Amino acid sequence: MQQDHVITLLISCLDRPGIVAAVSQFIFEHQGNIVESDQYATARQNGTFFMRISFSEEGFQLNERELVEAFQPIAARFGMQWSVHYSRNRKRAAILVSRLDHCLVDLLWRWRNGELVIDIPCIISNHPDLEPLARMYQLPYHHFPIRTESRAADQQRMLEFLEGKVDFLILARYMQILEPFFVQAYPQRIINIHHSFLPAFTGARPYERAFERGVKIIGATAHYVTEELDEGPIIAQDVIHCNHRDSIEDLIRKGRDVERRVLAEAVRLHSEDRVLVYKNRTIVF
Amino acid sequence: MQQDHVITLLISCLDRPGIVAAVSQFIFEHQGNIVESDQYATARQNGTFFMRISFSEEGFQLNERELVEAFQPIAARFGMQWSVHYSRNRKRAAILVSRLDHCLVDLLWRWRNGELVIDIPCIISNHPDLEPLARMYQLPYHHFPIRTESRAADQQRMLEFLEGKVDFLILARYMQILEPFFVQAYPQRIINIHHSFLPAFTGARPYERAFERGVKIIGATAHYVTEELDEGPIIAQDVIHCNHRDSIEDLIRKGRDVERRVLAEAVRLHSEDRVLVYKNRTIVF
Amino acid sequence: MQQDHVITLLISCLDRPGIVAAVSQFIFEHQGNIVESDQYATARQNGTFFMRISFSEEGFQLNERELVEAFQPIAARFGMQWSVHYSRNRKRAAILVSRLDHCLVDLLWRWRNGELVIDIPCIISNHPDLEPLARMYQLPYHHFPIRTESRAADQQRMLEFLEGKVDFLILARYMQILEPFFVQAYPQRIINIHHSFLPAFTGARPYERAFERGVKIIGATAHYVTEELDEGPIIAQDVIHCNHRDSIEDLIRKGRDVERRVLAEAVRLHSEDRVLVYKNRTIVF
Amino acid sequence: MQQDHVITLLISCLDRPGIVAAVSQFIFEHQGNIVESDQYATARQNGTFFMRISFSEEGFQLNERELVEAFQPIAARFGMQWSVHYSRNRKRAAILVSRLDHCLVDLLWRWRNGELVIDIPCIISNHPDLEPLARMYQLPYHHFPIRTESRAADQQRMLEFLEGKVDFLILARYMQILEPFFVQAYPQRIINIHHSFLPAFTGARPYERAFERGVKIIGATAHYVTEELDEGPIIAQDVIHCNHRDSIEDLIRKGRDVERRVLAEAVRLHSEDRVLVYKNRTIVF
Repeated sequence: MQQDHVITLLISCLDRPGIVAAVSQFIFEHQGNIVESDQYATARQNGTFFMRISFSEEGFQLNERELVEAFQPIAARFGMQWSVHYSRNRKRAAILVSRLDHCLVDLLWRWRNGELVIDIPCIISNHPDLEPLARMYQLPYHHFPIRTESRAADQQRMLEFLEGKVDFLILARYMQILEPFFVQAYPQRIINIHHSFLPAFTGARPYERAFERGVKIIGATAHYVTEELDEGPIIAQDVIHCNHRDSIEDLIRKGRDVERRVLAEAVRLHSEDRVLVYKNRTIVF
Repeated sequence: MQQDHVITLLISCLDRPGIVAAVSQFIFEHQGNIVESDQYATARQNGTFFMRISFSEEGFQLNERELVEAFQPIAARFGMQWSVHYSRNRKRAAILVSRLDHCLVDLLWRWRNGELVIDIPCIISNHPDLEPLARMYQLPYHHFPIRTESRAADQQRMLEFLEGKVDFLILARYMQILEPFFVQAYPQRIINIHHSFLPAFTGARPYERAFERGVKIIGATAHYVTEELDEGPIIAQDVIHCNHRDSIEDLIRKGRDVERRVLAEAVRLHSEDRVLVYKNRTIVF
Repeated sequence: MQQDHVITLLISCLDRPGIVAAVSQFIFEHQGNIVESDQYATARQNGTFFMRISFSEEGFQLNERELVEAFQPIAARFGMQWSVHYSRNRKRAAILVSRLDHCLVDLLWRWRNGELVIDIPCIISNHPDLEPLARMYQLPYHHFPIRTESRAADQQRMLEFLEGKVDFLILARYMQILEPFFVQAYPQRIINIHHSFLPAFTGARPYERAFERGVKIIGATAHYVTEELDEGPIIAQDVIHCNHRDSIEDLIRKGRDVERRVLAEAVRLHSEDRVLVYKNRTIVF
Repeated sequence: MQQDHVITLLISCLDRPGIVAAVSQFIFEHQGNIVESDQYATARQNGTFFMRISFSEEGFQLNERELVEAFQPIAARFGMQWSVHYSRNRKRAAILVSRLDHCLVDLLWRWRNGELVIDIPCIISNHPDLEPLARMYQLPYHHFPIRTESRAADQQRMLEFLEGKVDFLILARYMQILEPFFVQAYPQRIINIHHSFLPAFTGARPYERAFERGVKIIGATAHYVTEELDEGPIIAQDVIHCNHRDSIEDLIRKGRDVERRVLAEAVRLHSEDRVLVYKNRTIVF
């Protein structure tokens, strides 16, 4: 429905008085009706200010080009970094998977269901196994094997394939480490699910190591991928209790429920332009 | 510290464009620096709009009287219900208890600790038992027995005693039903903790009835007291898991942890002017 | 794998000394190796005693007929109600659905994944909508319309169809109230998911009523169906937090996650013979 | 009440058939009535078997000396490590604190309340600050300063002081690292609360580091102290959600609630002989 479309401004700048007044006055002057607004400053004095403000597209008097032009002086006055997002332009995401299907099953179900408002131009995998699942949802599935001996070249090929097709990537238990050049191509636009509560158990085999350590909770963490493995800004995390009776297999089974929920949440937040990054941390509006 | 004091505006009115612009412009004009702002509308079209906006008192050019006067035209233009709150004016709360001490112990510890920024002019009880606890914190303790045969008169006496002393009341497992005239004297200003996840198990003996029903979770609910028992607007709720091994005594023991946490949370929210009431529901900013 | 098969005894009787000794001695004598054992008595004195004890089928010297015969004297001595279950005999469950697919999607995924060790001879619905989902998993789908004017007869037909085919039923958001004669045919063998934390919001439209009441948590309850609507023994429950920003649609969306998790948990517990019923409550081993 | 006293056997040995039968037969022969029993084997084949079995002291025909003597042959047959515990012999715990009071306040309140069934012969601190709290509960408070230049000698003095007075130690945010000789004097009998979800943020300033890392959950871990800092067997863990708005001070405040709950839980489990250690992990019955 047209009347549900919103325009969202994401803003950051040095904090000082008058920002909210200027932005809200701008929206009001051009007949925008604010439907959601959130803000945060990193400190009371001289902090960095972040804002996410959404207003109805219907009735707003400027088109996208006009908006950018008209907002420019305000942005300049406050030294803002800013971007504008139209909800009717759904973000396009490629989902990358390997052999485990639980996150993909969950994402696709939520997507078809309307919980995740994104477009999925393709599903990519280093294995052919999950193609039937993609077909079920009539989504293109591309098999890009990654070979140890040609890993960089293989990823390069994948990167070229994606060129221009997508806005962000979802690693839904994709069992390959992405090369730095690949990560740099999608800064803060690759979402990974790691199967532990980071920063505990970074790297390989977290459930096995959780079992060995005898923890009483296990968890999952969705984060933006950076060049340092499992060190990127955390978007969402959750845990589940476990006990001595849980074998490694039980931890894996219980963990699946947390992984898929946390990844879906992060994808939803990102797709709605709710996540800003500041100093390797996220502000989630 | 002076620089930490904030002024908070609570506003509600019919939703229409321009409210945020007008309010933030007002604050900016008088040199206020916004430190927190949240808003909510009950519907996209023709809803009711609610706003809580806080700005530093330091540097703000108007004193309280001037602020009220200067804001009046804006309030009139939008037909606002509004109030202004200065954080340096701590709210004064009377705590009412009976014999159970867990909520009182917790509230007092958090209070002394700085988690709850309120003044406590008195603790009131229908029993003498918890006086030593009050004394430990050097707080006045008043024993107001409530007798079946003179219940209304007894409460009347209590009400008169409180006159002018407090801004709100905390029923920390106070085992008496307040008379309608008493409740009416403190509309949306009496916080009760009920030991169940409302609306389940309203009324007496909720743990016993939870045990009988064989539930797998028990909970607690903090709400504003209205004339209808356990039907007032809910401020905070939480639960804890239980199982067949839990006797009624175990439920009571586990429940204490939830009760005290939920009550403290509700008191904190109320004391920071974060709770607005709309149609027997709360908006918690 | 043969070596993973276990035999499980479920026992209840008046509590008195010697029960555990007798049962464990019986298992030991016939070369059984206990792999899991749990027990519970409703009271220290004169309570009812419940036990679930599992031992490896491999190496156990008695076949099923011999086991029953040999255990009979022990059962008689203590006045036991008891049953024996072989894990290699997977329980057969019919899943009943209407139009909402989230619980069915989840159950089928967990089933194919090995989390739910059951057979699913058929999926039954009063609507044709979810047939494609059944077909995806190559499961028979039967459309049994229930008409207001012939409700009892329609259900009778369904009951006859199920005759001999299944051990228990799963109501995965099946939007029909089962007739008493139907319920009586599967005592403590029909698992329903109700979309509220019972006993709050029994009956229709719980999310709408949760919204109206302004609760800060919503939940889901899996229970055995009895003739009294939403009053049967509770097997599993869980909740999720919500707030004033959640519309009814948001509650429905958030609730789906809880519903599917709680229903799957209840089905797993039932399928592993972990649930005993006592006075409309469950003992979950 | 005499009738509530129980005798608890803790047993571990190589798993093989007949253990439960032998133990339960032994209890039955001497007129013991089992009130609780739990067991666990680390593997289906050739695992290590653990058992905790409790029976009423009332009516049991053997006194402690006789029990030990009579059980010896069974223990020998199965090569058991075992111990026997009488609930009427409350465990004696020293609580060690520094300046932060939240864990101590909570432990003492639960103790007086009957939630923690232990004796507290003394509270020990390297600071004088919390003495008034001890006095409130009429408990002896001993100030043992620990100086950098005489740390080992200071702890030696403390160790000698404790000699014969206590069964286990509770470090309730005690801000000193215990010397190896001290730890060795109380193997698996010193419970520490660490203010993070281990193994994340071992060592100093975990809240600060959690803030820096931008986690969305914080937690607390109760564990037995071993010579390796924060690496001992974990008894209990829990977490709470946080977000970008939480300053380090907020994390500390929220964390206090988790710390005190997790520590109290671990103390309760230990005091009821519910915790067994195996390979740096705990089995919690």
